[in-house]
Amino acid sequence: MKKTDYQMIIVGGGPAGLTAGLYAARGRLETVLIEKGATGGQVLVTDWVDNYPGFYDGIAGFELMEKMTAHVNRFDLEKKFATVASMNLQGEQKVITLESGEEVTGQTVIICTGAKPRKLGIPGEEELLGQGVSYCATCDGPFYRDQEIAVVGGGNTAIQEALHLTKFASKVTVIHRRDTLRATAILQEKAFAEEKIEFIWDAQVSEIIGNDEGVASLKIQHNDGTTSDLGVTGFFVLIGVAPNNEMLPLKQLETDAGGFIITDHEMCTKLPGVYAAGDIRSKNSRQIINAAGDGATAELSAEHYLSNMASPANP
Amino acid sequence: MKKTDYQMIIVGGGPAGLTAGLYAARGRLETVLIEKGATGGQVLVTDWVDNYPGFYDGIAGFELMEKMTAHVNRFDLEKKFATVASMNLQGEQKVITLESGEEVTGQTVIICTGAKPRKLGIPGEEELLGQGVSYCATCDGPFYRDQEIAVVGGGNTAIQEALHLTKFASKVTVIHRRDTLRATAILQEKAFAEEKIEFIWDAQVSEIIGNDEGVASLKIQHNDGTTSDLGVTGFFVLIGVAPNNEMLPLKQLETDAGGFIITDHEMCTKLPGVYAAGDIRSKNSRQIINAAGDGATAELSAEHYLSNMASPANP
Repeated sequence: MKKTDYQMIIVGGGPAGLTAGLYAARGRLETVLIEKGATGGQVLVTDWVDNYPGFYDGIAGFELMEKMTAHVNRFDLEKKFATVASMNLQGEQKVITLESGEEVTGQTVIICTGAKPRKLGIPGEEELLGQGVSYCATCDGPFYRDQEIAVVGGGNTAIQEALHLTKFASKVTVIHRRDTLRATAILQEKAFAEEKIEFIWDAQVSEIIGNDEGVASLKIQHNDGTTSDLGVTGFFVLIGVAPNNEMLPLKQLETDAGGFIITDHEMCTKLPGVYAAGDIRSKNSRQIINAAGDGATAELSAEHYLSNMASPANP
Repeated sequence: MKKTDYQMIIVGGGPAGLTAGLYAARGRLETVLIEKGATGGQVLVTDWVDNYPGFYDGIAGFELMEKMTAHVNRFDLEKKFATVASMNLQGEQKVITLESGEEVTGQTVIICTGAKPRKLGIPGEEELLGQGVSYCATCDGPFYRDQEIAVVGGGNTAIQEALHLTKFASKVTVIHRRDTLRATAILQEKAFAEEKIEFIWDAQVSEIIGNDEGVASLKIQHNDGTTSDLGVTGFFVLIGVAPNNEMLPLKQLETDAGGFIITDHEMCTKLPGVYAAGDIRSKNSRQIINAAGDGATAELSAEHYLSNMASPANP
């Protein structure tokens, strides 16, 4: 049998992976963190983070990730910048195959590959991200006090968040491509009763128009062929989240209907020695702080597994 | 029926409670956080925190808690400084009774009352806390590179942490009051095989002696009546953790054998509208970062519950 090279392999370098890496490096485990791009994950493109406890004036997303990266660097965490092609997580020795063909093997694996918001793919969406375009009402809602904003989506999340946004915004327009909502009845009732919420049915946003200050208006394409403009300063795209799971052995893991990995509250997957942390998990709330918390919990669960292995953890 | 005064009551102001409070205040829920002392919990008496991701040079415990407190203050979280006498968490309206007799009522409750390490109660223990006396090997182990240290305890945690500490310390002496360990066989085997670990059996530490630099030595009382001294610079007391649950309605909640509250991975207890976060939970790892993560998850679970209640969340 091939030598097991690492005690721990962390796949993904967002807040969950960096925190797992911090704990592993401080704990002096032979660890490697594999990241395909730059460490920081989705937070790198998050304009402003106002709810990571401790940074009380808020902090730019990339700056918070710089600090987290500096933190793991202080403890000399080994990093490998490469794209994972596939994994075999069954058995005692886990094998991660990189796109180059190289195999990285280890006794434990923590999956922190994250997720991404589903996007509309329309002009202005990418350019105005963080300048009025947002995928997270919990994160960015408070920035829109007394402003007029719009939400696209018709599911539970979209309607719950539209209701949430009425606490800040003076008006919330929900734009939905159908004439009925998918959200549960109770949420629909509340949304219909809420004076600040208006609906535009049977319509899609075709373009986001910006000015010097960010989002200025939306171009709306109605299903009857007409078009219209809606002036808003904020636009929340709440049409779902997709897991970064292309490289995962989905037949070996247990996932929910959306393809997210199911874990228990200690971040254990159904495979011994395999853990998941952060947005790739099946969970209700995806926040930086609970991704980081997941990372610490997963790492300590993995340490616990290593210390109880029959063969010495440190051969 | 009495008017429900708050949408959310958070009991306890450590990292879990402060983070739940941050999310609730940013979410503009009618919330009160009840704390019996100063906000910050156990971290207030933690000398140095080296593993809260983002503060990459480390930070003093009280300073991190000052920052977290400033964070919730920026969003005007209402706080009540009072001791909770009892709670009734059944039914839609939850009732928290303070020692003054005052009743605080709410639709949801997040329990963040924390835990405390079991202490030996010997001279020097309190005085040298953070100056060589520690209750957390994961937190403080890396501060003792190439030093001689001691651990008191004989359970799984003590022995697992003693093994962990050998990665840093040049010698780890385990002091145990009996002649056998309670830890599982595999951990015992590893500890006995580890050259850096020595045992002192049938003995208790009766005093911790300090000098200008912190802990200098331990006075050891052997069961045969003799005494001895052991020179160490670090002393880890790993004899267990106790929940702060005196004020909790333990018959209404589900707890583990140690009296910690059982939750699922969304921080839900078995009572609708009641959540637990941080060290009061039944869990394997109690860290600042995962307490904070728990707090965010619990608050968002409570928001979800409120938005799905039949009566409007904001009457």
